[in-house]
Amino acid sequence: MQAVKTIKFLKEPTSTAWVEQAIAHLDTILLDHSHCERKAAGVALNLMFRYPSSAKLVRSLTAIAQEELEHFEQVNQWLDRRGVALAPLSAPPYGAGLSSQIRRQEPHRMLDSLLVSALIEARSHERLGLLAQHCPDAELAQFYRGLMASEARHYGAYWTLAATYFDPDTVNRRLAELAEVESALLATLHPEPRIHS
Amino acid sequence: MQAVKTIKFLKEPTSTAWVEQAIAHLDTILLDHSHCERKAAGVALNLMFRYPSSAKLVRSLTAIAQEELEHFEQVNQWLDRRGVALAPLSAPPYGAGLSSQIRRQEPHRMLDSLLVSALIEARSHERLGLLAQHCPDAELAQFYRGLMASEARHYGAYWTLAATYFDPDTVNRRLAELAEVESALLATLHPEPRIHS
Repeated sequence: MQAVKTIKFLKEPTSTAWVEQAIAHLDTILLDHSHCERKAAGVALNLMFRYPSSAKLVRSLTAIAQEELEHFEQVNQWLDRRGVALAPLSAPPYGAGLSSQIRRQEPHRMLDSLLVSALIEARSHERLGLLAQHCPDAELAQFYRGLMASEARHYGAYWTLAATYFDPDTVNRRLAELAEVESALLATLHPEPRIHS
Repeated sequence: MQAVKTIKFLKEPTSTAWVEQAIAHLDTILLDHSHCERKAAGVALNLMFRYPSSAKLVRSLTAIAQEELEHFEQVNQWLDRRGVALAPLSAPPYGAGLSSQIRRQEPHRMLDSLLVSALIEARSHERLGLLAQHCPDAELAQFYRGLMASEARHYGAYWTLAATYFDPDTVNRRLAELAEVESALLATLHPEPRIHS
């Protein structure tokens, strides 16, 4: 299996162990992906609730939430097609680990929230790309390829928002710190197959 | 001012006092409407999180949340056009009053949540219709008319979901009780102009 190219923002690329785990459990990955899209829409909406006067943030996150819901619906159609019932799934430690890095006081809270979302979107972009590349079902691979462009736009949008409300040095310094944590959280493969295992 | 026709589900029609208050404060109503659309998307998403295995609910509420976000963006464009900045607004007692009626134990919680949303959508449908009828800005009136059909679809969808998961007698009995509370909450006009004042 060829070495994985590092996506901008990410400190370390995804291991080939994750790719093997994911391809061996595609239905579970698809179900977890459905949860990820719904959660991503929820995160965007929560930020819109928390900063209702920040017009650029509100407008940009409205578009992101709409796209996440569209993908959620598309992934659910794939689940339907493969006969996988909607069901809860335990979350890997990744999301909680990243959330714990978000400082409680403003304006740090806003900066960290935007950068954590940027990193999650960047990682999703990388991993959907790997699924597109290695998925044995050509049509599903094509679906993953189609989603990659949106994920890339999303991490760009979160980064742009951070750069709108904070100075570039602050953004880049904090992004580097959080990227370090993000890669560390994925250094040991989670035993349950997940998008962020 | 002509008497208001009662919308299906609603116990009492909106008073002419509300129409006069709303038309006299269109910018505030538009800003509150923006918050209502965002909140409605949030409510749909929360229900999707709470009942992740209920496929029909998840699929139907995905479509509703998408439409609410689309309307949220459209209302925000109207605010922009009228030079009204996005800003927080105090909520009238309506939403909290209705939420307090949602019983905590399942399956009552699901039934009540769906019916409370159905009633809020039905009331929004009625009031957007009144704004469409009485708004002095013809283009804005046309916009309200355009939204009415969706709100009607939404209250139908919430009612259909209730009827999917519960027997018709239970649904109708509880809907009648909640409709009583809903109209009582609006019997005294809230001093601040709001969609649900």
